[in-house]
Amino acid sequence: MTPVVPAAAIILAAGLGTRMRSVLPKAMHPVAGRPMINHLISTCELIFDRIVVVVGPEMPTLEKTVAPHATVVQAERLGTGHAARMAAPLLRDYAGDVAVLYADNPLITAPTIRRLVETRAKVDLALLAMRPADPGRYGRVVQDEAGDVTRIVEWADASEAERAIGLCNAGVVCAPAQDLFRWLDAVGNDNAKGEYYLTDIVDLAVADGRRVVAEEAEEAELAGANSRAELALLEAGMQARLRAAAMAGGATLVAPETVFLSWDTSLGQDVTVGPNVVFGPGVAVEDEVEIRAFSHLEGCTVRSGAIIGPFARLRPGTEVGRGAHVGNFVELKAATLAEGAKANHLSYLGDVTVGAGSNIGAGTITCNYDGLHKHRTEIGAGAFIGSDTALVAPVRVGDRALVAAGSVITEDVPDDALAIARGRQATKPGRGFKGKKKDAS
Amino acid sequence: MTPVVPAAAIILAAGLGTRMRSVLPKAMHPVAGRPMINHLISTCELIFDRIVVVVGPEMPTLEKTVAPHATVVQAERLGTGHAARMAAPLLRDYAGDVAVLYADNPLITAPTIRRLVETRAKVDLALLAMRPADPGRYGRVVQDEAGDVTRIVEWADASEAERAIGLCNAGVVCAPAQDLFRWLDAVGNDNAKGEYYLTDIVDLAVADGRRVVAEEAEEAELAGANSRAELALLEAGMQARLRAAAMAGGATLVAPETVFLSWDTSLGQDVTVGPNVVFGPGVAVEDEVEIRAFSHLEGCTVRSGAIIGPFARLRPGTEVGRGAHVGNFVELKAATLAEGAKANHLSYLGDVTVGAGSNIGAGTITCNYDGLHKHRTEIGAGAFIGSDTALVAPVRVGDRALVAAGSVITEDVPDDALAIARGRQATKPGRGFKGKKKDAS
Amino acid sequence: MTPVVPAAAIILAAGLGTRMRSVLPKAMHPVAGRPMINHLISTCELIFDRIVVVVGPEMPTLEKTVAPHATVVQAERLGTGHAARMAAPLLRDYAGDVAVLYADNPLITAPTIRRLVETRAKVDLALLAMRPADPGRYGRVVQDEAGDVTRIVEWADASEAERAIGLCNAGVVCAPAQDLFRWLDAVGNDNAKGEYYLTDIVDLAVADGRRVVAEEAEEAELAGANSRAELALLEAGMQARLRAAAMAGGATLVAPETVFLSWDTSLGQDVTVGPNVVFGPGVAVEDEVEIRAFSHLEGCTVRSGAIIGPFARLRPGTEVGRGAHVGNFVELKAATLAEGAKANHLSYLGDVTVGAGSNIGAGTITCNYDGLHKHRTEIGAGAFIGSDTALVAPVRVGDRALVAAGSVITEDVPDDALAIARGRQATKPGRGFKGKKKDAS
Repeated sequence: MTPVVPAAAIILAAGLGTRMRSVLPKAMHPVAGRPMINHLISTCELIFDRIVVVVGPEMPTLEKTVAPHATVVQAERLGTGHAARMAAPLLRDYAGDVAVLYADNPLITAPTIRRLVETRAKVDLALLAMRPADPGRYGRVVQDEAGDVTRIVEWADASEAERAIGLCNAGVVCAPAQDLFRWLDAVGNDNAKGEYYLTDIVDLAVADGRRVVAEEAEEAELAGANSRAELALLEAGMQARLRAAAMAGGATLVAPETVFLSWDTSLGQDVTVGPNVVFGPGVAVEDEVEIRAFSHLEGCTVRSGAIIGPFARLRPGTEVGRGAHVGNFVELKAATLAEGAKANHLSYLGDVTVGAGSNIGAGTITCNYDGLHKHRTEIGAGAFIGSDTALVAPVRVGDRALVAAGSVITEDVPDDALAIARGRQATKPGRGFKGKKKDAS
Repeated sequence: MTPVVPAAAIILAAGLGTRMRSVLPKAMHPVAGRPMINHLISTCELIFDRIVVVVGPEMPTLEKTVAPHATVVQAERLGTGHAARMAAPLLRDYAGDVAVLYADNPLITAPTIRRLVETRAKVDLALLAMRPADPGRYGRVVQDEAGDVTRIVEWADASEAERAIGLCNAGVVCAPAQDLFRWLDAVGNDNAKGEYYLTDIVDLAVADGRRVVAEEAEEAELAGANSRAELALLEAGMQARLRAAAMAGGATLVAPETVFLSWDTSLGQDVTVGPNVVFGPGVAVEDEVEIRAFSHLEGCTVRSGAIIGPFARLRPGTEVGRGAHVGNFVELKAATLAEGAKANHLSYLGDVTVGAGSNIGAGTITCNYDGLHKHRTEIGAGAFIGSDTALVAPVRVGDRALVAAGSVITEDVPDDALAIARGRQATKPGRGFKGKKKDAS
Repeated sequence: MTPVVPAAAIILAAGLGTRMRSVLPKAMHPVAGRPMINHLISTCELIFDRIVVVVGPEMPTLEKTVAPHATVVQAERLGTGHAARMAAPLLRDYAGDVAVLYADNPLITAPTIRRLVETRAKVDLALLAMRPADPGRYGRVVQDEAGDVTRIVEWADASEAERAIGLCNAGVVCAPAQDLFRWLDAVGNDNAKGEYYLTDIVDLAVADGRRVVAEEAEEAELAGANSRAELALLEAGMQARLRAAAMAGGATLVAPETVFLSWDTSLGQDVTVGPNVVFGPGVAVEDEVEIRAFSHLEGCTVRSGAIIGPFARLRPGTEVGRGAHVGNFVELKAATLAEGAKANHLSYLGDVTVGAGSNIGAGTITCNYDGLHKHRTEIGAGAFIGSDTALVAPVRVGDRALVAAGSVITEDVPDDALAIARGRQATKPGRGFKGKKKDAS
């Protein structure tokens, strides 16, 4: 959508979230695998042609995570109106609308923001309001008979009749840049906390004889997080949305409430995901893949028809080929398994390439790190790595090669060769375990 | 129960479930570990002496899964009335009642179906109805003052007063065979979609002057699934039922909402199941077993007093003996552990027999596959397999035998013998790791 | 708080909980990692100076778990009044108040009990009452216009008007010792079950002209458990409380509903706990630790900045040092990892000390058990244990020592030395795997 008029956004992200009890800025707390502010920025990028983020002092990671968008620093925390005004040097002369949003609203959707902007084009000031199940101590939106907003009344100042109003202020506003900053300049701090409240621009607009209208949105979209418990609710809301989208796209989540997706998880059609599966960022799963219970995937691609898990751990840089199998207690890191390859039991495959149709036995360990450098292991196509084998990288096992069980492979194995590297067995009669047994743990 | 009159069932299973976005017929989507239609068939087998399943064209796996019950193919999808009529060649002359049910109603219970059949014996046509929390766009059941059904009115055609009716049509009907098929033959397709609706037989029966009665059932039993999200709700409903039954039988599920049972899971008295445990099909657990968190069992028997997990993976063909222990990151496949045997850490035991009281050390791997055949490993009673040992099958370790840690065992070890098979240690002073360390991953 | 008058508690714990279908006394069923009665006792210890537990015959484990508190045995189960009277020999002459509580009320809080005791100081008999969402068949608390209790009416005996009362009896009472036992002596058993009901003391007190007052408490605090399903609800209630406290303290639980805490779990500030993490008893986690999905910790300490999991298993006696990493499919038992040590893949470390900054390669197994005794492995600082290594304890690997991958270490490795212990590799051309491949499992 192109807005009716050009539009820019100010995102307020200076809050520390004291009740979070965290050293991390509130906006940096992750939801569905990325900082919550990035959800809002992605949504805003669909609507606004400029985005300015108001950060607190000494928040370098936040500034980095919102790049290339501009940041301004609110040095003192003097309220939301004061915070928004920090963007004046960058946006006061902006030829269009400016909306003010909050970094801890990651669930707000593009259609909702569009409605705000479109509403603004018809009136002088638009704001977002909601009808919470429990209105509690939210400020109430007072409307005249025509439905125009006449004031926002704080709960503490509200009469009984006003408290009975269900429509609550969500704090998000949109107005032409010049109006917005003029009103912001006029906001005072003559209140109990001595803060400058963004909401006060509503009264100023009304006093100017301007039309103010509230656009309603779902409470769930406007949920914020002032505590870890509220953060968990944001995560739950985002997960519900991601799970519904995955199922609508043709994936079966046997127990959706136990599947944790990242914002960018991609699941193909007829993918089946068992209970208790966790997707970190960067996972793409093609059609007809089965991901069994207790699997944990991140930064990987899984091709059609592959079977993953249970108890599989796929780490970044991994690609599992068509029809390949990765099974119980197997960890893959920077591993490429070609079509039909199998690694089904208790293996660590790091920095490795496995050719088509090769079989990796139980208990195979790639020794990819010598304490100084990482080295790669290359396994050809149609090879068979016997169980309980160590592959000391850098090493290559050729096509159709066979490695005997229990070997420690330190030298390359040519195509079609057999390699064996283990101790000789000695058996000593009568020196067994008779009568020794005690309790193990 | 023997019904008052003989009764047969037609199960409609031809649907593809377009909104499922799946290549699998809707009836084949699994719930609690088996295709949803098999739940309904198991229930129907308690009531009906004949079952005919109406399938779509080219659904060979569905025909196989419902065998030995008869199937008929609905070649064109012309509505539920048309589908039910496909069974006419097999049931038109049936001397008794015929009920029509839906493959995607796996939660319907035998008592409910019995009430339907018993009600039919008293009147001419019986149907199942429900009072959903949200009646939405369900067809409404219109009753006269005596409670007899006078018509089913589709939501689109309903007056305000009719829409206020809470009793909704569930689509399940029961009537004498001859009546049912006569009515089905008379159903027309003069409607928006040009389909033949099973529900229309109600109007035909009423027009014939017959008595029609609605038997009420719980909405939860009559839930269907037209999307993956609704499929997940069916799964959740079935899991809730299975968990409640397990707890009523004397098993503790510490966090029932995290335990996933199969339709046939059997748990004894004083079994404790920790959080996050998944049961695939075919698991029987005897009394006083402890199954710890993050365990995944399928196709196995666990004897009294055994301890499983956490992080244990029991695969088909496994039997864990009385008081045996299977612990962290241990996978068993076609493994028999006798009484008191222990395999507690990071082991793969496939195609293996372990005698009573034997101890399997950490990191033990049975090398059961040579790329061509599977071979068995036999471990006697009272044996001790040292840690990090590979047992290259076929191989036998005798009673009370002792295998030294780190061995690769390729030859049989007699009873009471010690076997050792590992490289000799060489130690080279001054060639250590001094100063080399870098970051690992 | 010191009560206004001295106060003692009788805890009724003689119940078997027939509907639990268990051999365990009901009070011994665990909630959040300890027997439910211990929750109540811990709470009571904050209020009462004496605690007497009424147990059933032959409940030695229960007597042990409540020690050093006194127990008395109720030999016959003749009702709650009879049970409470069993404590008379110990408390009849107690110079203060006596409260009667129930072992299956683990969620009752100290402030609620305090309010009961404080209320009692103002009147003659105080009891706890609640307003359940579904009052069902609870006995109703009948009050006069002043709010004093005039009687408790059982549901079966209640009039329609009385059944409409929302205030229900929770069974918990408090009265001066002499009054309490006098009334208990006077309670009869002329009722359907022939039992002596504690509740009947209310009528006796009123008949004596005494003032009885009901102190209201949340239904959730007074939930009991007569079945495994209700036990699961108690567990859920306790988990909700523990999770809320952890989040309020500054820990992020990404999906709190999937994190299972023990009553004594301690999580520092900015600890992040991923989905599906289970804490057994005795876990202390310092600040800024990350515990990833599918981890299971018990009896361990995790120092600041450490990273645990996913799929990590920490068992009792383990300490993970500052900034140390324990990764995928790694089990630690009685293991001490010093600052910055890493064990990231498929390892079993039991009875081991690892020095600062040492790296434990994938597939490392400490062979700590010889079937007779446990032995320790000592690894120095700055050492590097190559992958797929077995360390046969007792053994010491020195500071900055290097163990080659695939070794079985049986002898000590001095500081700065290299050790290698593996078979020599033999490679045989043309004896590879060509054409042999079949299906693996």
